[in-house]
Amino acid sequence: MRKAMFEHEIKILRDTFARLLRRNAHTNLVKLIRKTHPADLAVVFRYFNDEEQVQVFSIMVDDGQAVEFLVELDDTLIANLLEDESPERIATVIQESSANDQSYILGTLEDEQAHSVIELLKTEEQEEIEELMGYPEDSAGAMMTTNVFTLYQNTTCRDALTSLQDQSEAEMVFYLYITDEDDRLVGVASLRALATTPADTILKNIMVKRVHTVRPETDQEEVAQIVAQYNYLAVPVLDEDDQLLGIVTVDDVVDVIREEATEDFLQMAGAGKDREILLKSSWENARARLPWLFASWIGGIFAASIIGTFEHLLESMIALAAFIPVIIGMGGNIGTQSSTIIVRGIATGRIEIGSELKVMWKEVRVGIILGALYGLLLGAFAKFRFIDADPMLGVVVGLSIGCSMLLAVAVGTFVPMFLRKVDIDPAIASGPFVTTSIDILGVLFYFVIAEYFLSI
Amino acid sequence: MRKAMFEHEIKILRDTFARLLRRNAHTNLVKLIRKTHPADLAVVFRYFNDEEQVQVFSIMVDDGQAVEFLVELDDTLIANLLEDESPERIATVIQESSANDQSYILGTLEDEQAHSVIELLKTEEQEEIEELMGYPEDSAGAMMTTNVFTLYQNTTCRDALTSLQDQSEAEMVFYLYITDEDDRLVGVASLRALATTPADTILKNIMVKRVHTVRPETDQEEVAQIVAQYNYLAVPVLDEDDQLLGIVTVDDVVDVIREEATEDFLQMAGAGKDREILLKSSWENARARLPWLFASWIGGIFAASIIGTFEHLLESMIALAAFIPVIIGMGGNIGTQSSTIIVRGIATGRIEIGSELKVMWKEVRVGIILGALYGLLLGAFAKFRFIDADPMLGVVVGLSIGCSMLLAVAVGTFVPMFLRKVDIDPAIASGPFVTTSIDILGVLFYFVIAEYFLSI
Repeated sequence: MRKAMFEHEIKILRDTFARLLRRNAHTNLVKLIRKTHPADLAVVFRYFNDEEQVQVFSIMVDDGQAVEFLVELDDTLIANLLEDESPERIATVIQESSANDQSYILGTLEDEQAHSVIELLKTEEQEEIEELMGYPEDSAGAMMTTNVFTLYQNTTCRDALTSLQDQSEAEMVFYLYITDEDDRLVGVASLRALATTPADTILKNIMVKRVHTVRPETDQEEVAQIVAQYNYLAVPVLDEDDQLLGIVTVDDVVDVIREEATEDFLQMAGAGKDREILLKSSWENARARLPWLFASWIGGIFAASIIGTFEHLLESMIALAAFIPVIIGMGGNIGTQSSTIIVRGIATGRIEIGSELKVMWKEVRVGIILGALYGLLLGAFAKFRFIDADPMLGVVVGLSIGCSMLLAVAVGTFVPMFLRKVDIDPAIASGPFVTTSIDILGVLFYFVIAEYFLSI
Repeated sequence: MRKAMFEHEIKILRDTFARLLRRNAHTNLVKLIRKTHPADLAVVFRYFNDEEQVQVFSIMVDDGQAVEFLVELDDTLIANLLEDESPERIATVIQESSANDQSYILGTLEDEQAHSVIELLKTEEQEEIEELMGYPEDSAGAMMTTNVFTLYQNTTCRDALTSLQDQSEAEMVFYLYITDEDDRLVGVASLRALATTPADTILKNIMVKRVHTVRPETDQEEVAQIVAQYNYLAVPVLDEDDQLLGIVTVDDVVDVIREEATEDFLQMAGAGKDREILLKSSWENARARLPWLFASWIGGIFAASIIGTFEHLLESMIALAAFIPVIIGMGGNIGTQSSTIIVRGIATGRIEIGSELKVMWKEVRVGIILGALYGLLLGAFAKFRFIDADPMLGVVVGLSIGCSMLLAVAVGTFVPMFLRKVDIDPAIASGPFVTTSIDILGVLFYFVIAEYFLSI
């Protein structure tokens, strides 16, 4: 299977590290670390225990290798690893890297520790880092690369090529950003356009003038949407005066898309939104999941109270109790289907403002189809299974599951769309919310219907 | 709010189209279509009704605009739109585009229609399309661009630059792929390396030799993982003889990551795995969701039968029925949290083979913590609320919810890891599966515990 290729390679690497660490083979470890891609190193690092992590990190040389590795690492692991390092070592490790890598690493540390490190850096670096760290988390400003290569609009293609060749810092040149005399971004040109145009042409005449840009405070999710929508390799970030602050590159967008999907998954399951939850302790895990379960506990208490008030009904027909799980369970499941389809539809831009009613009506039709089908099935089963009970039991059970499923679809569809309307992340209209609502509503409708139809 | 910017622009575009379509303003429509980005056009297109879609598509000129638009469109919409078009029009529309765009569009059509179109194309195009369409869906072969710019390893940088300038076809040149005399891929160089090296250097001396490659049958998910892991802009696809068949570019990978996340979401909610489900009719929707609900229906029937066999217990203590929803509901919710964390952890590579036991044990600890907490809470509530019932009711209820939650965590953790082990997509260990298991197991444990503790 080709599918397992990547996993297989990582596994071999992990085993090699484990063996060398066990044998304490310093020289071989140094060699292995040197020839391993920092991204791979970051993956296997998760499987080391605390001492092994410290040992491997202490072996890394500070000439750029350590910092390249750190930026690939999960936030939680960076913080753990650097917690006990001296500010001096940290400053040495990060001093040669770019401002956005520096601010990313410092952002994972405690404020005080980060501050001590910043004080050890050069003044101009300090200023740049503090500016970057000032942007909100998950914004374009926080993820942009400030190292951008710009050219003046009246430069000729020949001169542009020459200055490109002198440019050793800006690592990934995707596009050439072109500015006017006031340093405002006025256009963009591709490397290819530059290479395929007569050498005397000025950039102004080959550049594309309509450029999609974002502001530093733009949410990373919107940046990702723009990059994905138009297949860009980078998006420029401008301040209010249209001056180029930096660019967000596609490789960072790839990470954002994965991270946002993970957060949405966790949030919809009512498991918080910490994408690194697997790296956290059982206690932290329990704490993140506790509030959602509390909501569902309260819902359960409500359901218990409702059933309690219908005790007289249950007393005269015990068989009613048997159908509680299937009525609320089917409701919960179809409701979760609906809310998942809607939440994901909103996230991928398939549900636009204005199309809500159409979508809702379609979901309700699905609820009617499936509710009627499973209502008939369950009604028939109830009639057959509890043959001695009231002849209306089948009707009650069938009608109740139909209602429960229809209600669930309505709740599962309406709630995320409503939340979006009031500017709350629809992903919190999560599984627990829908299933809990159905626990309460399903049980209530069930007993009201039973009271109406059963001759008790 | 900057967040709404993108949505806002799309809304304006949609309104403009709606107005022009209402007024049947042909000339203005032509202008608007011409100046709208194909990707934006594809987004607003979803909101047109069938006649409007046909009208807008008929206005598009066949000089490349129509095909650029089509490749941005959802599969379902392409199929709908082209269903009634003649093979001649389709052939005209796609004839100037690249082989992978052609095979993508043809792939959405019925076999017979696709075949009629292929017959109208040039022979060499036919061959290439048939080759591409032969690769499995969702493989590197199906998504690769075959238009790749390669250079021979003994070419000098000067000659390489010259031939690059003649190269008008390969639209996105990310890397220079370098081959030996037998056309095998031997290395890769960046455009920048080319531009910054003395002109007489041969490519062999500047190329990177260790290149990460994939095979045409590699799953798109693995390709995405490689691109994301190493921040590549493109990955070369090689056949068994190491000959370069094409490249998969990062912009396609961005789409894959989004699509795979959507499929996992839907699958985990038991709503099939058709990412275009929102574009399907209510009937198709119901059909996709029906089987998962059927499984949950069967589970409900089991639960009903279990409760049925404990009728004597319920008869002597009706209050037991009241706690059925909260016991299975809390179990279902904590189990869904666990399975979501695990499924996502597997998808993002955070749960490696070999670390399963550690992860499982951590989850079980979370189950114990939260099960004990909510067991105590619910036991206390039961004692207080049903004050006249058996004094052991609180113990029974508390113990049962604790067991139910612990079981749920174990099921939610074990099942996806087991499925991965036997090479089945863990995402099908979905919400419905976990909640249904807990419907059955939770109810069973509840009544067994009740039978043991209650003096009936």
